Amino acid sequence: MAAHHVYEATCTAPVNIAVVKYWGKRSTSLILPTNSSLSVTLSQDHLRSLTTARCMVDGQGTDRLWLNGEEEEIKAGGRTARCLEEMRAMRQEVEAKNASLPKLSSYPVHIASENNFPTAAGLASSASGLSALIATLSTLYDLPSNGVSTSSLSRIARQGSGSACRSMFGGYVAWEMGAREDGSDSVAVEVAPKEHWPDMHALILVVSDAKKGTPSTAGMQRTVATSALLQHRIEHVVPARMERMSAAIQARDFDAFAKETMADSNQFHAVCLDTEPPIFYMNDVSRAIIQLVTELNRVSLEKEGRLVAAYTYDAGPNAVLYVQEKDVKSVLEVVLRYFPQSTTSFPDPFQTQADPSTALPEGFNARVIPVHSEGSVSRIIHTQVGDGPRVLGQEESLLGEDGMPKQLKR
Amino acid sequence: MAAHHVYEATCTAPVNIAVVKYWGKRSTSLILPTNSSLSVTLSQDHLRSLTTARCMVDGQGTDRLWLNGEEEEIKAGGRTARCLEEMRAMRQEVEAKNASLPKLSSYPVHIASENNFPTAAGLASSASGLSALIATLSTLYDLPSNGVSTSSLSRIARQGSGSACRSMFGGYVAWEMGAREDGSDSVAVEVAPKEHWPDMHALILVVSDAKKGTPSTAGMQRTVATSALLQHRIEHVVPARMERMSAAIQARDFDAFAKETMADSNQFHAVCLDTEPPIFYMNDVSRAIIQLVTELNRVSLEKEGRLVAAYTYDAGPNAVLYVQEKDVKSVLEVVLRYFPQSTTSFPDPFQTQADPSTALPEGFNARVIPVHSEGSVSRIIHTQVGDGPRVLGQEESLLGEDGMPKQLKR
Repeated sequence: MAAHHVYEATCTAPVNIAVVKYWGKRSTSLILPTNSSLSVTLSQDHLRSLTTARCMVDGQGTDRLWLNGEEEEIKAGGRTARCLEEMRAMRQEVEAKNASLPKLSSYPVHIASENNFPTAAGLASSASGLSALIATLSTLYDLPSNGVSTSSLSRIARQGSGSACRSMFGGYVAWEMGAREDGSDSVAVEVAPKEHWPDMHALILVVSDAKKGTPSTAGMQRTVATSALLQHRIEHVVPARMERMSAAIQARDFDAFAKETMADSNQFHAVCLDTEPPIFYMNDVSRAIIQLVTELNRVSLEKEGRLVAAYTYDAGPNAVLYVQEKDVKSVLEVVLRYFPQSTTSFPDPFQTQADPSTALPEGFNARVIPVHSEGSVSRIIHTQVGDGPRVLGQEESLLGEDGMPKQLKR
Repeated sequence: MAAHHVYEATCTAPVNIAVVKYWGKRSTSLILPTNSSLSVTLSQDHLRSLTTARCMVDGQGTDRLWLNGEEEEIKAGGRTARCLEEMRAMRQEVEAKNASLPKLSSYPVHIASENNFPTAAGLASSASGLSALIATLSTLYDLPSNGVSTSSLSRIARQGSGSACRSMFGGYVAWEMGAREDGSDSVAVEVAPKEHWPDMHALILVVSDAKKGTPSTAGMQRTVATSALLQHRIEHVVPARMERMSAAIQARDFDAFAKETMADSNQFHAVCLDTEPPIFYMNDVSRAIIQLVTELNRVSLEKEGRLVAAYTYDAGPNAVLYVQEKDVKSVLEVVLRYFPQSTTSFPDPFQTQADPSTALPEGFNARVIPVHSEGSVSRIIHTQVGDGPRVLGQEESLLGEDGMPKQLKR
C-alpha cells in the first residue's frame, strides 16, 4: 500500500441556549435575523456534535454525508451544499495566495457526524451540528492559521442554521444581526469567555410532549407575517435588552442576567401566541416549572435579596434553568421534589448529592404546584458553561481508512 | 295592617363576553381602562344575575345586601357602597326637580341577588351581578323615565366592576375608554342590537383547572407595570381593531368578526405572558380547543372559503366559541367528538341533535388533537346573543313581605 498523506479533521462543537432569543428572519435565504440574540455555550463534556471530514484525494466521487450513521443526500442549493461551497471558496483564496499548499479545495469530501444526545431529549441538534461541520472543515482546510477569524466562520455557520453561528464560540456569545443586505456583518462575537464567569450551571429539564410543535423555521416566519407585537419587540425591546444582558454578564450580575433571561423567554413565547394561528411551545408542565422557579426566587429575594435561578424555553416544552454553582444543590432539591427522577433519568455528572426530601426553604409555599408524577420531566441534564469547538485527534475519527463511516447503523 | 306602597324592583342582567379585551386600568379607583373594549351580550334565558332592591320605608336600619342567600357586608368606600351612593345622588337630582316624587333616596335599601349559574362553572359573575344591581336600582328610582340614559347608568356600573358597564346593553356593545380624568366619558354604547345579528350563538366550554389563576384585578395591573408589549397593544393595535370589529358587526361579516376575535384573545394572553412574573390563564385543554377550532376553520376555509367558529378566552381556561346558527350543529359534532359530554354536562337548550359519531368534515386531520377523556371539558353551555337588563314582575322578587330574603341558604 502506497503511503500518502491523509487530509482529515475531527472536531466537536457545543450546544448553545439563548437568553435573548432569535425569532424572525429578514432574509430566509441568507438566514439574516430580525434582531440580535445572545446565548450561553454549554459544555461539550455533556452535549456535543462530533464531526469528521476527509478530503478524498483518490476519489473521483462526490461529496457525501452521514448523520448518526445514516447517509443523507447533500442537496444542490441546500444548506449543507452552500456551507461546503463557502468553505471551499475560503480555502481557494488561501491556496491562491500560497501555491505550495495542497489543492484541498479540489477534492470531494466525506463527512460523518454524530450527536451524543438522543433526539428524544428534545434538544435541537442543528446548532451544534452545523457548527461542528464548519469547525471541522475550517480545521481540514487550515483556515484559522491562514487568518480566517472565528467570526468569519460564524457567518458561514449562520447560513447553515441561524443559531449555529453562536456555537462557534465558548462562553457568552452575541449574534449581531448586522445591517448589510449580503449578511457579511451578521456574525457571532464573544461577549465573554467561559473563564470570565465559569460558575454558571445549566439544568435542562426535558419535558415530554405528546404532540410535536410547529417547526421553528416555519413558525418564526408566521410570526413575522402576522404578529403586531413582534415589530415592537424587535425595534424597542431587544436592542436595550442586548445592552443590559451584556452588561450583566460583564459584571457577573446574576440577578440582572436572570431577570432579562426570564423576561425574554416569556416575551418570545408571547409573540408566538400573538401569531395567527397561535404557536404554543410550552405546556402545563413547562408552566409549572416557571411557577416553581418564580416561587424559589420570591423566597430567596425576600430572605437574601437575590435570585437563584433563571428559566428559559426555546421552541419546545423543555426548560433550561441557569443557576450559579453555589445554588445548584438547593435548586435541584426543590426541582427533584416536585419532578421526581431516578439515577437513570438524572445521572448527575457533578454528583451534587441533592436530596429531594430536604426541607423546603423557609416561607416557601409548598402548594405552589402539585408534586408531579415520575416522567412529567422525563430527564434532567446537568451541565455548565463551556468552551467553543474543539479539535480532536485522529483516534476519534468517525471515518475508517477507506473514508467510509466506521460504524454504520443497522 | 296599614296599606302602604311598596317601593321595590326586580331585574335580571346578562353576562357579556368580550371580543376585544379589557386588560389594564389607567385609574384603579374609578376603574378607567387603558383601552376600549367590545363584547357580545349573552342571553338571559341561560345565564343571568337576578336582583331585587326595596326601599325600607318603615326601617330605621341600614343598607343590607344578600348574595346567593348569604348576607354580605356593604363596606364603606367599597364598590357596592359607591354604586349605591351614585344611584342615590341621581335619584336626589330627580327628586329635586319634582317635589311631588317620593323621597326614595332617603330610605335604606335591602338588596338580594342571585346568579343562575354555579361559581363552579368558572364564569365571572361580577359583570352580570353589578349590572343587575344598577339596573334594579335605576328601576326602583325610576331613573330611565326621568331622562337618565343607559350609557349614564353604565358609567356607574363600570365603577362597580369594569366590564359590568357592557352588560347594561344587549347585542353588541362597546366600552369606550374615554379621555376625561373623572371618567364621565368612559361608558358603554350599543354597537348594534341583538336583532341586527340575531343568529350569533355561543358555546361555553368549561375547562377544569386544578389551580386558580391570578385574579384579574391584580393581574392586569402587573401587566400594566411590567409588560413592554401592552403599551404597543393599547396604542397601536386596539384602536384600529375596535374600528374593524364594529365594521364587521355592522356588516354581519362573520369571517372578519372571527379573525379579530381570535387575534385579540391571543394577544391578550400574549401580554399576560409578557408580564413579570408571567400570568397563565389557558392550560393544555384550552390550547387543544384552539387547535381544534383552527383545524375546523382551515378545512372550511379551503372548502367554502369561510370561517365557522371563533374562540375567545377570558382570565381563565374556559373557551367561548362564537358560531353562527347555521354552523352550530357541525361545530358541536366535532367538539363533542373530541370532548365527550353527557346530557348532564351538556343539556342543550336548543336541542341541536349534534351527533358526535358523525363523520368528520372531508379533509379534516383527525389527529389534530387527541380525543380527550370525559371531564376535560366538564360542561358545555349553549347560548346566543341576548338583550340587555330586563325588568321582572313582583312575583319574581327575592324579598319577602318583611323585606328579608325569601329563601336564605342554610
